[in-house]
Amino acid sequence: ADPEAGRKLAAQCKTCHGLDGIATIPIAPNLAGESQIYIQNQLKAFRSGKREHEMMTVVARDLTDQQIADVAAWYESIEVTAKLPE
Amino acid sequence: ADPEAGRKLAAQCKTCHGLDGIATIPIAPNLAGESQIYIQNQLKAFRSGKREHEMMTVVARDLTDQQIADVAAWYESIEVTAKLPE
Repeated sequence: ADPEAGRKLAAQCKTCHGLDGIATIPIAPNLAGESQIYIQNQLKAFRSGKREHEMMTVVARDLTDQQIADVAAWYESIEVTAKLPE
Repeated sequence: ADPEAGRKLAAQCKTCHGLDGIATIPIAPNLAGESQIYIQNQLKAFRSGKREHEMMTVVARDLTDQQIADVAAWYESIEVTAKLPE
């Protein structure tokens, strides 16, 4: 998988999921730092119809396995850190 | 929703999703900083069967709306920051 190719593909994700993978709207999840395998599994589930979402079903429909792997590798490459509330 | 009650409930999530909401296994997503509404939507989808996952279907089955709101509020209260690769 090629994270750099994935970064380019992710241009179409940024309106909802954010340029850095931190979502811009509450109904969309953050993708920053999610594992490649998790994102792949979800995109393939949207593509096959196993997981349903009005927007994501359309987005995933035309992605190849390679594109899915690349975009998933891109989001995995973003480092996230979590800070618990005091 | 009560994030402190949610923090206690989240004890059952930590094996896979991490004490701080950063997943411990690749097939599980990070939950740290996800919006309350996103997590609520997913837990309710698992509970109703709309979204399927061997483990999560079982976990969500017995949660009340209040418990779902609380645990979702807990994860929302964790602050995440993302760092793009150089």
